[in-house]
Amino acid sequence: MLLEQIHDPSDLKKLNLKQLRQLAEELRGEIVRVVSERGGHLASNLGMVELTIAIHYVFDAPEDKLIMDVGHQSYAHKLLTGRYEAFQHLRQRDGACGFPLTEESEYDAFTAGHASTAISAALGMARTRDIMRGDYNVVAVVGDGALTGGMSYEALNDAGQNETRMIVILNDNDMSIAKNVGAVSRYLTRMRQSKGYIAMKQGVRSKLENGHRFARAFYRVLNRTRNSLRSLFVDDQFFAALGFKYIGPVDGHDLKHLIRVLRSTRDNSLPQLIHVVTQKGRGYRPAEDHPDVYHGVAPFYMESGASKSETRVSSGSVAARELIALADNDIRVCAVTAAMPAGTGMIQFQQAHPDRFFDVAIAEEHAVTMAAGMAAQGMKPYVAIYSTFLQRAYDQIMLDVCRNGLPVTFLVDRAGLVGEDGATHQGVFDLSYLRSIPGLIVAAPRDVRDLKKLIELSHETDRPMAIRYPRDCEDLGPGIQSQREFGVGEWELISDGRDVMIFAVGRMVQLSMQASIELMGKGVSAGVVDARFVAPMDRDMLLERACGVKLVVTVEENVINGGFGEGVLEILAKAGVSTPALTLGVPNRYIAHATVAQQLEECGLSAMDIARRVRKRLAELSEARL
Amino acid sequence: MLLEQIHDPSDLKKLNLKQLRQLAEELRGEIVRVVSERGGHLASNLGMVELTIAIHYVFDAPEDKLIMDVGHQSYAHKLLTGRYEAFQHLRQRDGACGFPLTEESEYDAFTAGHASTAISAALGMARTRDIMRGDYNVVAVVGDGALTGGMSYEALNDAGQNETRMIVILNDNDMSIAKNVGAVSRYLTRMRQSKGYIAMKQGVRSKLENGHRFARAFYRVLNRTRNSLRSLFVDDQFFAALGFKYIGPVDGHDLKHLIRVLRSTRDNSLPQLIHVVTQKGRGYRPAEDHPDVYHGVAPFYMESGASKSETRVSSGSVAARELIALADNDIRVCAVTAAMPAGTGMIQFQQAHPDRFFDVAIAEEHAVTMAAGMAAQGMKPYVAIYSTFLQRAYDQIMLDVCRNGLPVTFLVDRAGLVGEDGATHQGVFDLSYLRSIPGLIVAAPRDVRDLKKLIELSHETDRPMAIRYPRDCEDLGPGIQSQREFGVGEWELISDGRDVMIFAVGRMVQLSMQASIELMGKGVSAGVVDARFVAPMDRDMLLERACGVKLVVTVEENVINGGFGEGVLEILAKAGVSTPALTLGVPNRYIAHATVAQQLEECGLSAMDIARRVRKRLAELSEARL
Repeated sequence: MLLEQIHDPSDLKKLNLKQLRQLAEELRGEIVRVVSERGGHLASNLGMVELTIAIHYVFDAPEDKLIMDVGHQSYAHKLLTGRYEAFQHLRQRDGACGFPLTEESEYDAFTAGHASTAISAALGMARTRDIMRGDYNVVAVVGDGALTGGMSYEALNDAGQNETRMIVILNDNDMSIAKNVGAVSRYLTRMRQSKGYIAMKQGVRSKLENGHRFARAFYRVLNRTRNSLRSLFVDDQFFAALGFKYIGPVDGHDLKHLIRVLRSTRDNSLPQLIHVVTQKGRGYRPAEDHPDVYHGVAPFYMESGASKSETRVSSGSVAARELIALADNDIRVCAVTAAMPAGTGMIQFQQAHPDRFFDVAIAEEHAVTMAAGMAAQGMKPYVAIYSTFLQRAYDQIMLDVCRNGLPVTFLVDRAGLVGEDGATHQGVFDLSYLRSIPGLIVAAPRDVRDLKKLIELSHETDRPMAIRYPRDCEDLGPGIQSQREFGVGEWELISDGRDVMIFAVGRMVQLSMQASIELMGKGVSAGVVDARFVAPMDRDMLLERACGVKLVVTVEENVINGGFGEGVLEILAKAGVSTPALTLGVPNRYIAHATVAQQLEECGLSAMDIARRVRKRLAELSEARL
Repeated sequence: MLLEQIHDPSDLKKLNLKQLRQLAEELRGEIVRVVSERGGHLASNLGMVELTIAIHYVFDAPEDKLIMDVGHQSYAHKLLTGRYEAFQHLRQRDGACGFPLTEESEYDAFTAGHASTAISAALGMARTRDIMRGDYNVVAVVGDGALTGGMSYEALNDAGQNETRMIVILNDNDMSIAKNVGAVSRYLTRMRQSKGYIAMKQGVRSKLENGHRFARAFYRVLNRTRNSLRSLFVDDQFFAALGFKYIGPVDGHDLKHLIRVLRSTRDNSLPQLIHVVTQKGRGYRPAEDHPDVYHGVAPFYMESGASKSETRVSSGSVAARELIALADNDIRVCAVTAAMPAGTGMIQFQQAHPDRFFDVAIAEEHAVTMAAGMAAQGMKPYVAIYSTFLQRAYDQIMLDVCRNGLPVTFLVDRAGLVGEDGATHQGVFDLSYLRSIPGLIVAAPRDVRDLKKLIELSHETDRPMAIRYPRDCEDLGPGIQSQREFGVGEWELISDGRDVMIFAVGRMVQLSMQASIELMGKGVSAGVVDARFVAPMDRDMLLERACGVKLVVTVEENVINGGFGEGVLEILAKAGVSTPALTLGVPNRYIAHATVAQQLEECGLSAMDIARRVRKRLAELSEARL
């Protein structure tokens, strides 16, 4: 195998074209094999294989800087830069991260995870090079999706205007390009490489036409949200006007041509943009046919492509069904998402109410303010965005939604520890940043039954509200299910305790209940309260239950700084309650990729950890009293 | 006076063209007079007079929705919509807000304050209209500066693609247009209204040529940062490609023509963009000559234009001078700002080190990540952005700077209560959102001497750091100036106390010292600690000083939720310190425009308030003990 001989990109440069093509096939095989075992991003990585080889063949990393936008397409890059072993443990604890990580390798110039940042970072590096009189190349690889994020434009505008030497590679794997015949065809005739390019496009098109009904529907959606930008950038007037020299489109699977084009851009003193057209899922038939399904996957059987894991009902899916039911009877209910219709479950809403579903592309800021505009005119918008991506819209939630007092509801998916995606995707800051916003109701259900109830409640309230939940939200069953309804700010006493009272948020309720059982076995009577509202808090219940016990405990899947626990302490201090308190949560650092269970343990938040830490604190207290 | 007869826009519609022109002059006079007394935004409002009249003449607000981006150009709009009286008290408590405010008038369709949100909000309203089968017009007025913000593109992309009926008016007052002769001249020949337009442009050009040296320098900067986008949008292919019908350029001071053009767009079913060229400061000579100086002003003498207030040395100016000194000896030091070179004081740095100064336009997200890219390659970037606008870049600070552990320093200007700009500009959330970010040092100087020391310290550290300070930062003099140096996380004991220990942040240190003197007069011995680091905190000093007193007090110019005080409570709880605590700060709601002194009182944060609240709490405690 050639791949085994590649310890760093210098080994790559010794290969001839035939060998490079063989290497591409080996990389594909390796990526499919490892992702089938570990899960991860598949389709985008298969599309990037030749482009990654060509980049490392032409440029001299790590002296030349390579910045990959988002970074989920970095697997071939990792395999070519001395991380073959780490890649065997992709997304596992101590294995390779699924995203570029500066600590992992000097070849990862910038840690990424969120979209549309690469051109900005690259520009900063290029400027530094020019100030320091360096002479290296700076190359940003950006997907067509990330180009829909406003930050990409801000960066292009800045770089182009100042004529900074840098290379932006547009990795265009949106197959909708085949439909914009008018604009593209002008290009095709101009291209030197027209023959190969047309052949590739036809291959793509026929695959689409023979493809699965769902895949076709998916591309229609992509088309709708991206078309307008696309029709800009296939016209080189757009990038030229922004000060970039436009080169392309280039067939992203033609290694020979790719190498020639990249070589022609190396060491030039201008801002250049190379438009490379790639095929998502390239070389693995199930992923070629259903690139959406194989964007991010759980482990699967390599031969069939079928998933190894059981089908779970995601929280998002539960939320979507509840929303659909509300929308059936209320024309005001609509759903907004930022390029995540499948991940958030909202694709179901789209199918049920297509006229009230809005996917605004990778544009969280716009999504939130657009929803505020809708609410200002009487709609009840539901904005479904992952916790980590909603960080992008902190200011818009603060001013456009909450300062205006508008009834927008945020469905904050992937809240808490997220597992294999790691540090850049943790949803462990939302309780802090959301509860600092005046007027915003912040809630977290302990299971899917309460998720439904909270959505109903959000439908009834005329205030802005955020509901945060992890991807998987169990059904704890009717046993611990409150029979009664609850209003905004009402917590629920699940079990009473003589020694300790645990106030827990979201899925920490379940772990706290387990901890209370463990504690009972050790002779400690610990009650549990479901603190389902982090803002406003249930002051009455907190004060009632916090007095008369030896220890108040807060448990949350969020950083301690600014989180739920600190808010509890503030209420207790204000009321003059002097019961000792223990705040459990995520420590204030970035938590790396591992399983959710491992991350919970790392944070001391497993049921056993909670019980242990409560007992330790009780021991300290009784010692202090002696 | 005609203006007195205008109670709402229907009165406007009764006037003929000659009367409308007279009204425009009256509006100008009124705006200059009131702003000369109250301070506020002048140049942009003078530029918007005819356009505002034309909009209200043609459209039927409040049924038709008018959304002004940023909103500091809304004075004429306020005067024409029944707020003549409130405008006399512009930016004063209970007077008219300097920005659109939905509570203030049904004619303000959306509360604004930050840039680049109007098209998103307007699109939301337009979509609602279409879902609800309404039939009104939605009009967004956006400045050319706000168009440099990525959010504007995200919104144009979404609206254009979906062919949503709406009107975007581009209020283009960037005079650099005169320099892009190539692109503009093509237009001029095509314009029906070419004669008047050319005459206006020539007027503008000659003013520039005869203008003040500083004004010319200012426009050169504007040119550099905005040119590339400009050259896009004078080519109607740009907006056409985004799905908008482009109309313009239109002379923004020719009422007759403006009305004709606006009428032609009313009730059309397409997304339309009208490119209106206006002159900042129009009609008031000092503002025409120096539109930058008269963008936002303190009260001034109407005849001469000279400022009534004494020249104060702003914190930003102190920071800039310190940075210049560092940069003189260290090539790594550079400054980044987002369209605020004057407001942040960084214009001085630009003059001293133009090659290491980067104004990236209204693009906070890009500014932060670009700085991260610079730091990744060895620079020491200083990013000067107002506290309220830095909210836009929460995610970029979190992931691009701090996750990468990069030594970017944020100079967080306008922190705390900001006075007359009001709710949308308060800098009272930064301690909460910044201290939730792992690895970020968060500091606040008590005066300009400490500001300098903190900047020196940031230069020495290799960690990300934020220094937050209000616009005006007094020099408390050497009397309470610590002689010794301090390291990261070190607080300073200013005075000891037997009964109470006050831990104060930033300019609250001074007020707390006054409060301690007031308390001394009432027989209460209260000490003061300057808690200049909010992250990390000085745990040792906190625990040492919090034990043995009757009451711990925290004072901060930040919301209580997630702020400094809660962090203090968490440390005390963890250490098992049971001293009662009182957390003073900004209540968790939006604080409206007033003077800073009035806002401090409203928040109970004046020196007298602090003393009163401490005494009240002490009384409660001794009562409880009885």
